[in-house]
Amino acid sequence: MKDKLMLMIPGPTPVPESALLAMARGPIEHRSKDFTAILEEVTDGLRWLHQTTSDVFVFSASGTGAMEAGILNTLSPGERVLVGVNGKFGERWAEMSEQFGLNCERIETPWGIPYPVEIFQEKLAADHEKTIKAVILTHSETSSGVANDVQAIAAAARAHGEALVIVDGVTSVGAMPVLMDEWGLDVVASGSQKGYMIPPGLGFVAVSERAMAASQRSTFPKYYWSFELAQKSLKQGTTPFTPAVNLFYALQMTLQMMRAEGLEAIYQRHAKLAQATRAGVKALGLKLLVEPESAASPAVTAVMAPEGINADMIRSVLKKQFDLATAAGQDHLKGKIFRIGHLGFISDRDVLMTMATLEAALHTVGYSEFTPGAGTRAAADVLAHS
Amino acid sequence: MKDKLMLMIPGPTPVPESALLAMARGPIEHRSKDFTAILEEVTDGLRWLHQTTSDVFVFSASGTGAMEAGILNTLSPGERVLVGVNGKFGERWAEMSEQFGLNCERIETPWGIPYPVEIFQEKLAADHEKTIKAVILTHSETSSGVANDVQAIAAAARAHGEALVIVDGVTSVGAMPVLMDEWGLDVVASGSQKGYMIPPGLGFVAVSERAMAASQRSTFPKYYWSFELAQKSLKQGTTPFTPAVNLFYALQMTLQMMRAEGLEAIYQRHAKLAQATRAGVKALGLKLLVEPESAASPAVTAVMAPEGINADMIRSVLKKQFDLATAAGQDHLKGKIFRIGHLGFISDRDVLMTMATLEAALHTVGYSEFTPGAGTRAAADVLAHS
Repeated sequence: MKDKLMLMIPGPTPVPESALLAMARGPIEHRSKDFTAILEEVTDGLRWLHQTTSDVFVFSASGTGAMEAGILNTLSPGERVLVGVNGKFGERWAEMSEQFGLNCERIETPWGIPYPVEIFQEKLAADHEKTIKAVILTHSETSSGVANDVQAIAAAARAHGEALVIVDGVTSVGAMPVLMDEWGLDVVASGSQKGYMIPPGLGFVAVSERAMAASQRSTFPKYYWSFELAQKSLKQGTTPFTPAVNLFYALQMTLQMMRAEGLEAIYQRHAKLAQATRAGVKALGLKLLVEPESAASPAVTAVMAPEGINADMIRSVLKKQFDLATAAGQDHLKGKIFRIGHLGFISDRDVLMTMATLEAALHTVGYSEFTPGAGTRAAADVLAHS
Repeated sequence: MKDKLMLMIPGPTPVPESALLAMARGPIEHRSKDFTAILEEVTDGLRWLHQTTSDVFVFSASGTGAMEAGILNTLSPGERVLVGVNGKFGERWAEMSEQFGLNCERIETPWGIPYPVEIFQEKLAADHEKTIKAVILTHSETSSGVANDVQAIAAAARAHGEALVIVDGVTSVGAMPVLMDEWGLDVVASGSQKGYMIPPGLGFVAVSERAMAASQRSTFPKYYWSFELAQKSLKQGTTPFTPAVNLFYALQMTLQMMRAEGLEAIYQRHAKLAQATRAGVKALGLKLLVEPESAASPAVTAVMAPEGINADMIRSVLKKQFDLATAAGQDHLKGKIFRIGHLGFISDRDVLMTMATLEAALHTVGYSEFTPGAGTRAAADVLAHS
């Protein structure tokens, strides 16, 4: 049905009506006091969201652009970095690091298995010459639904003393705690179409004092991505290049919503939605890719298709009959898993709706090894008791 | 008056209601057939707009990002480039070229004076060793309102045989002829908040076959800006990284409007609006920065403030009393000129309104050396007879 599609995917996520309508205002001059006021309000909200006193720069870009900015500003060609790789996004940051000539050491685990924190710890502890210049981490690995222990690895990097902590927070910021200052993170990159509840097009980079100091030493040439230009402009209440004004309107709106809800409440809501989703899925006899659940991201749940059934058949019924979008498995997990996003502008109702439609879709594709209503009931129980 | 501001600036430009409302739809999955259909329609429209059979890539970025992509994909560090500099944007491309380690030779003229085409011609003709790898040109120099003769310089570059032609088309695409294939341009970069009639946030890069071939030899590392990744994805009906979906909705709408109007009609409208604006301004006794008018861009008119009056005082009255935004002079022209943008979603009515308010504002700041009504009458005469 036209315009009826509901996004239960890990981005783009649904956008509240108030934010959509905010975008339908004509753009204002970006070099004006009115825009400065928006930029300052938004920057203040972004600092709050990242729990940092440092700067958060907004680029007209996707989350990948934000990560590229993080790497190009704080490192130099040939420098040694440890990159955690346990999914498509970790792969991407390793590929990007190699593309830019970094000496990239991949710390790999299979998709669905969290980073081996102890290997990061050992490598950092053994690095007496301080050759490791950064650890590059994916906090919530969107391709598998794993949450990696960024906090513990950041602690090891702080003990090391030299290595910066560069974090892909694309599906973690706004969905789970990302305590920039308390954890000692140096770069946190994210994108607008996730926990921020607005459409894609803005990339965010929170940058610690250490990272800004590192940017003075970095020899990668840069212009569009320059932290130096971004910081200089931000101090004057502006941006170096024309900002995506209408996306700022939307962001202003959703940051106000987030502040009204409160950070703790946002984290609890996401944790509850994730728990309810997983309880529901398991009550339908399906397996989760990420076990134990403590290793899973509150943003997205990867579900294994039943034996002999292609996951994309389930997704197809969900989309065609029920106007419900879920995400496909990527690379070697294609057809084997489907992913349910439950981050951003998602409420209890959405999870029950997802369970109800999932039950029906499973039945349609020939899988019925569950008590009718078991998924919604199990999910509802979690929602009632948390 | 709240929400009343009318933008007569060279970007962001006013956005038609249909495009604003299109943006207020929830984002769809960017990896879906529905998005592929939008991307293909839009790409087809962009080819038409650039009069090219080559690819036009869309980045989530500003126009500066689009220029950066053009330079990083087609050149390599140390290569010799000629950069035309006669305004703020030419300065920016020279600065960017130097930042990326190119051997940058500035061909400068004062702001308001077009490029000295013969110097480009001579340098290209004398370069028997083919050391010039590109000419980097600003077609419509937004800071001064000059239109540079890109066509003639491109012809010289084609005769040279090696030098690529990299063009900032930010305020020319959609406002004046940019005949990519016929003129032999290799990279045309532009941004969405200008002739495209949508808000800022998309950067466009049209790329010739020659430029794609050059990208194979380029040694600049790149990832987000990679033409190779962009082309590979476009062939599959997608983008390498999450696109700014809602801006695509708006672009789909305005490209449909542009096709309905027709390219020739669009160019004629802009030429007429520019001519009427200039006739009106001159009838008020004010001088234009760019003379003769044949050297001026149809997108923007730079007006000299009357002797003894700060241009920003005039702008201030226009904005505060009449809710009309004009653009300030930049750098050494600050306070000396103001700029009237007349590109994109601008009609005859807007020009008369601008003249009417400008007359009143001039009177308010103490300049009355004109017959009341002279500006609107002169503008109206042009509009009636063209």
